[in-house]
Amino acid sequence: MARGRTGRRPGNQDTRGLILTAAREAFSQRGYDGTSIKQIATSAGVDAALVHHYFGTKEKLFLAVVRPPVDPALLIPQVLAEGPEGVPTRIVRTFLQTCEGPVTGPAFLGMLRGGTSHRWQGLLLRDFFTTQIVRRVLDKREDIGDPSYLPLRTSLVASQLFGLALTRYVLKFEPLASAHQDAVVTAVAPTIARYLTGDITAELESGNSGL
Amino acid sequence: MARGRTGRRPGNQDTRGLILTAAREAFSQRGYDGTSIKQIATSAGVDAALVHHYFGTKEKLFLAVVRPPVDPALLIPQVLAEGPEGVPTRIVRTFLQTCEGPVTGPAFLGMLRGGTSHRWQGLLLRDFFTTQIVRRVLDKREDIGDPSYLPLRTSLVASQLFGLALTRYVLKFEPLASAHQDAVVTAVAPTIARYLTGDITAELESGNSGL
Repeated sequence: MARGRTGRRPGNQDTRGLILTAAREAFSQRGYDGTSIKQIATSAGVDAALVHHYFGTKEKLFLAVVRPPVDPALLIPQVLAEGPEGVPTRIVRTFLQTCEGPVTGPAFLGMLRGGTSHRWQGLLLRDFFTTQIVRRVLDKREDIGDPSYLPLRTSLVASQLFGLALTRYVLKFEPLASAHQDAVVTAVAPTIARYLTGDITAELESGNSGL
Repeated sequence: MARGRTGRRPGNQDTRGLILTAAREAFSQRGYDGTSIKQIATSAGVDAALVHHYFGTKEKLFLAVVRPPVDPALLIPQVLAEGPEGVPTRIVRTFLQTCEGPVTGPAFLGMLRGGTSHRWQGLLLRDFFTTQIVRRVLDKREDIGDPSYLPLRTSLVASQLFGLALTRYVLKFEPLASAHQDAVVTAVAPTIARYLTGDITAELESGNSGL
């Protein structure tokens, strides 16, 4: 992305690097929502206009910091393409395809391992998943009920998908590790469906959480 | 456990250590089910009777290798105590209590981090969870249907519980990270219930995995 812009003025790679370092620090400390381009510019010692010049939007700067294995702009339309009914199924399928892609797989599992070992990497992974993936998938959905539960729904979806990656690819629980994608989708999609739009807050005593 | 047995003969701590090392290698390469006391004795260069003398059963030797944060012999009765209806609820609650205990919590999260970074630690964690926890919980249950699905059910339970630990304690997704235990139990127990005894293999095209 920045390749075509190098050489515009001397030292701009250094400036770009300074901004990226400041952005990584800000995003991993205050999160995506709590960080502004202005704060990043200030801590990098540059003008906010320069940050916009190099990286465009805050979102693009965030993606330049996280360097996710897949571009959400390509992923999201795939998940949403055929209407809301199949969203849980397509979330699980797209997640599995990403984890099993020859390039995206190792990259994502590297993020997961890094996020487990290093606090700042974990925060970036969390914010990437929350703000760039789930928030966009649920944007404008009218069937998710009380919007104040959206962050809890997002956390629960993450708990199942990240746990799926951990057990299928890292810990290699069998037969989950070698199961066909279809079987995994069948088993897990209803969980994602319930976390996205189902009843997740019924009273404990109602018996809903029993067997 | 071994403390009271030291001094019985000179060098027995070395022998004990040799057996433990051989056991760790065997369990992490061939798994719990694929390993016998005899194999361990052979690769440690001692008699099988000596392995039994120091460690008792294969199960006890396995626990001495894994050194789990909690003793399954204490945990399982707690989960099963009040009959099968509440098992999913009590699985999630017991898991959360273990993860949040002042001693057991850091120990379990250490196992999870170790299992994510080191293949052999991952295999031990997997086999501990499978053979010492879930297998015992489901022992003699008649409502789990076709027993050949038991390993898949176990994998799926692990995917949700380990993912819950990852997002709640390590990546700290909010509000999951600071949610009350009751709220987490309410949200997650139905998932565990379905993985344990529900329909996890319905045909994809039946629409069961849709929203």
